[in-house]
Amino acid sequence: MTATPDQAPQETPSPAARMNLLRAELSRRGLAGFVVPRADAHLGEYIGADSERLSWLTGFTGSAGLAVVMETEAAVFVDGRYTLQVRDQVDGDLFEFCHLTDQPPADWIAGHLAAGQVLGVDPWLHSERQIAALRQVAEKAGAALVLQDDNPVDAVWAGRPAASTNPVVAHALEHAGKAAADKRAEVAEQLVAQEADAAVLTLPDSIAWLLNVRGQDVPNSPLPLSFAVLRADATVQWFLAPEKVTAALRDHIGNGVTIHDPGELGSALDALGAAGKAVLADPETAAAWVFARLQDAGARVVKGADPCQLPKACKNVVELAGARAAHRRDGCAVVRFLSWVDQHGVARAKAGDPLYEAEAAAHLLALRGQGELFQGRSFETISGAGPNGAIVHYRPGDEESRPLGLNEMFLVDSGGQYLDGTTDVTRTIVNGEPSAEMRDRFTRVLKGHIALGTARFPKGTTGSQLDALARYPLWQAGLDFDHGTGHGVGSYLSVHEGPQRISKVPNRVALEPGMIVSNEPGYYKTGAYGIRIENLVAVVESPAQGPDEQDMLAFETLTLAPIDRRLIDPGLLNPEEIAWLNAYHARVRETHRDSLDPEAAAWLDQATQPI
Amino acid sequence: MTATPDQAPQETPSPAARMNLLRAELSRRGLAGFVVPRADAHLGEYIGADSERLSWLTGFTGSAGLAVVMETEAAVFVDGRYTLQVRDQVDGDLFEFCHLTDQPPADWIAGHLAAGQVLGVDPWLHSERQIAALRQVAEKAGAALVLQDDNPVDAVWAGRPAASTNPVVAHALEHAGKAAADKRAEVAEQLVAQEADAAVLTLPDSIAWLLNVRGQDVPNSPLPLSFAVLRADATVQWFLAPEKVTAALRDHIGNGVTIHDPGELGSALDALGAAGKAVLADPETAAAWVFARLQDAGARVVKGADPCQLPKACKNVVELAGARAAHRRDGCAVVRFLSWVDQHGVARAKAGDPLYEAEAAAHLLALRGQGELFQGRSFETISGAGPNGAIVHYRPGDEESRPLGLNEMFLVDSGGQYLDGTTDVTRTIVNGEPSAEMRDRFTRVLKGHIALGTARFPKGTTGSQLDALARYPLWQAGLDFDHGTGHGVGSYLSVHEGPQRISKVPNRVALEPGMIVSNEPGYYKTGAYGIRIENLVAVVESPAQGPDEQDMLAFETLTLAPIDRRLIDPGLLNPEEIAWLNAYHARVRETHRDSLDPEAAAWLDQATQPI
Repeated sequence: MTATPDQAPQETPSPAARMNLLRAELSRRGLAGFVVPRADAHLGEYIGADSERLSWLTGFTGSAGLAVVMETEAAVFVDGRYTLQVRDQVDGDLFEFCHLTDQPPADWIAGHLAAGQVLGVDPWLHSERQIAALRQVAEKAGAALVLQDDNPVDAVWAGRPAASTNPVVAHALEHAGKAAADKRAEVAEQLVAQEADAAVLTLPDSIAWLLNVRGQDVPNSPLPLSFAVLRADATVQWFLAPEKVTAALRDHIGNGVTIHDPGELGSALDALGAAGKAVLADPETAAAWVFARLQDAGARVVKGADPCQLPKACKNVVELAGARAAHRRDGCAVVRFLSWVDQHGVARAKAGDPLYEAEAAAHLLALRGQGELFQGRSFETISGAGPNGAIVHYRPGDEESRPLGLNEMFLVDSGGQYLDGTTDVTRTIVNGEPSAEMRDRFTRVLKGHIALGTARFPKGTTGSQLDALARYPLWQAGLDFDHGTGHGVGSYLSVHEGPQRISKVPNRVALEPGMIVSNEPGYYKTGAYGIRIENLVAVVESPAQGPDEQDMLAFETLTLAPIDRRLIDPGLLNPEEIAWLNAYHARVRETHRDSLDPEAAAWLDQATQPI
Repeated sequence: MTATPDQAPQETPSPAARMNLLRAELSRRGLAGFVVPRADAHLGEYIGADSERLSWLTGFTGSAGLAVVMETEAAVFVDGRYTLQVRDQVDGDLFEFCHLTDQPPADWIAGHLAAGQVLGVDPWLHSERQIAALRQVAEKAGAALVLQDDNPVDAVWAGRPAASTNPVVAHALEHAGKAAADKRAEVAEQLVAQEADAAVLTLPDSIAWLLNVRGQDVPNSPLPLSFAVLRADATVQWFLAPEKVTAALRDHIGNGVTIHDPGELGSALDALGAAGKAVLADPETAAAWVFARLQDAGARVVKGADPCQLPKACKNVVELAGARAAHRRDGCAVVRFLSWVDQHGVARAKAGDPLYEAEAAAHLLALRGQGELFQGRSFETISGAGPNGAIVHYRPGDEESRPLGLNEMFLVDSGGQYLDGTTDVTRTIVNGEPSAEMRDRFTRVLKGHIALGTARFPKGTTGSQLDALARYPLWQAGLDFDHGTGHGVGSYLSVHEGPQRISKVPNRVALEPGMIVSNEPGYYKTGAYGIRIENLVAVVESPAQGPDEQDMLAFETLTLAPIDRRLIDPGLLNPEEIAWLNAYHARVRETHRDSLDPEAAAWLDQATQPI
């Protein structure tokens, strides 16, 4: 699934040498500093190897972060998920470590930029708002912000991988549930309603959804990197590298979609501007470059949400049926995995030949690979034994993989890409006997998971409003977790997708029927263990059941894998919570029993007994 | 407490006649329409009788609403609290009834304003954003928005009350807890930090807090209506009607505060502009007029929150001690009231001589009046028997007061202004035997009330994040309530104050120690009954109790009055909820027992028995 560089890899210079190369390039351009976000021109989470500039410069491989390099100092900024990881991966002599929100880059820059200096940015890698904030900081310091036509990192990155040219393929109607022409017509209607003549689409998953295509340009998500312009007459100009286009793809897209070289995007925007068109672009997701080009071209820019985001998020009945089917197959693999860990984890730990994190992750991948329609992982597996479970986005290395010790906790967060759906599931187990504290913490996480998963809520409710339900049992004990409670999930697309989310961060997007979101509260004790319980759920109608009631929404649980009963303290659960757990386990058992070999079936029987 | 008009009241024309008078005035001015919000120049909830233009025009007396009058059509817009009341009070032949958020005025105007027409607004009665939104609607229709120098309603409102000239008095340090000079110095430091030379203060409660003064210009809140300019050197220009100023007040305010005629505000802003000053004003609370004047004067306008709002909301230790003391006295009055209702309610209903809503409200006021430091009600008492309880902001009229029938529910929401604190409490009781449905609904409201009231939460948490905790038990049954869950409360000031609130509406203001908020979930069955359980709570520190815990915040319950045990279904409560209720009732009993006559004490004993 991952993009492969076309060139032979070259020897990578040391971190200090890379820093020196970049600083020399900045000096050559007259720049006192430069901002290196973990981003590509689509501003998404999933980026090609050729866009991994932050990783090349710093060594940090997390999914979000940013570095600022000045003449003699530099800093790297990450969020709460990565505060441990960044210290492991990045040289503290070269970079100061900062928390992305508590110590914002703007403040750091303000303290390091002098009057008369020039700070450089790449307008393809930032939103307009980010550029405006940086410009404000620079101007306040008496300095200037200058947009770079090409990225200075690229100029010094020897052996930078070429952009992917993997072919784009059709996503079959039996999985998509709606023809691309119908989608184009419906979204075009939205443009008309917003009085826009066209929309610039920069999100790869929006384009993949709209045209019913999938690609292989980034790891773990079937995204074709491309740009598109959708017009109010439902035609599309698709800016896609010609190497990715096959005859079959041309047949699939049919009339109404024309293919162009990606380099022609600029002139297409110029033409819209010259014709005085009103052009919709999304300030939350499109690069500042797009807005600058449209404005320079004289277009009337309509700022609004990417018009594909909401219809893509609300899965149709075919996609929902696919999601259920994919989750049955995926759950079966997870059951076989958990059974295997239970069979070997304690015994091998006692025999001095423990299971390793990487071995477990590889076995889980192999089990998933036996399922129909499986295309690969939906993200790199998080397989954290003992204290590694507390590193929220930990990935075991091939050589640094940790053994699973006796009575330790083991957190595995993994998912699959199937032609009929994308999965994402976290289970935390104990390899032997848990401590009372582990059971207390696990049960609180479970209580939050159940409260959120069983919630009914009125139409119009946002994920921000529901977030506290999942945290409340932890809060009551003075505990919390430093990540969102739930993210949207695509349909054989990105495992993280908007516009909805369940988190502390305010979000005005209401949950709507058909949306798939994760429900994943956790608890992390640094240096000891991590707990997370994650199911995917679909938003469904929950009609009024009496004359006084109103129609509500609720969640249908998609994920089907047992929750470790050894870690549950039944004394902390109320009768409704116990009833939910037992019913869920009965459903898991009934779903998988006939698909398992006798050993795994027997394991599942005992793992799903009522408490 | 209420402002009294200086002139003898004149006979009021009929609603249709008032409408005709206004339309004639609009026609004279060349206006096709005019917007009449329920607002004064301070854009607050509490307005003087001279600003009750919406009430004069429409008859609607709710605390929020807006009318738009066009040449032949008109509409009145209210929120969910007032959808029933507006139909009772306003002539449906004259006004179309619209929901303020579901059918926004902008949409209605868009459908009624023709190209070439002129829509008038009073820039003193709208925020800048409201004006901008109205201008956008008008311009989209090809019409114009024109700011009026004086309000056309005033031109035709015969017998309009004069503005209040009641004297302003000092608020003693023993209640305020901090000297006005110290407050001025602290807020001035904030101005310096924001690089502002001055701040325009338009909120009456901000000025009352800052200068430690109280007034009597509006009903139920001790607000002096005035404006002020605070400068970064901690001096204040106070724009206050000279009739309100006594020698004692001049002594109290001391050096550093100069008093000016309200008409001089404009020239003071002009002077700031002429001197090129940076002036802070709050776009959320200040009238558009302020911004227009500052901009015209050439001032650098710094848009930000009113700098008094947050320090005012976070009560100091003296204010918190005062709040606790005021709530003890207030709770004692409520206990005596509830005992009295219980003693008479059923018996008189059976005897055909029932209690009336207005009689009960008057009795409660009399009981409160026997408490020390009592200054009056903090708002007009909501006393709703049976179906009237479902009208969220119902007030019984003197003549339309409803009798309290046997086995009916009775909702009383009331509060007092004491020199040491402001109270606000709602209790719902049953006058006899409740139905199973009443008990189910009441217990769900109680569960939500307890979940919120006992919540611990991390620093940085907003009321928006906590709101769902109070709704969850209702949501699970397909029910909800159409009002906020909690509002801020002042210290011998407004019973509604910002910036914090607990509601579905997103709010980025974190709850901070010392803030007082209400906790008031409810349930309303139109035509049958209403339920609300309201305590005031103070945000307090809740320190970590173990090495893994973090310091949290929590609520301290201030209100001390029993919750009707007859309406509670113990089978719906979990052990923690029962423990909370019994502990709360024990505290209520211990607090009041020795302050009551034997009859009320005996009643309290049984009303607070453990369940």
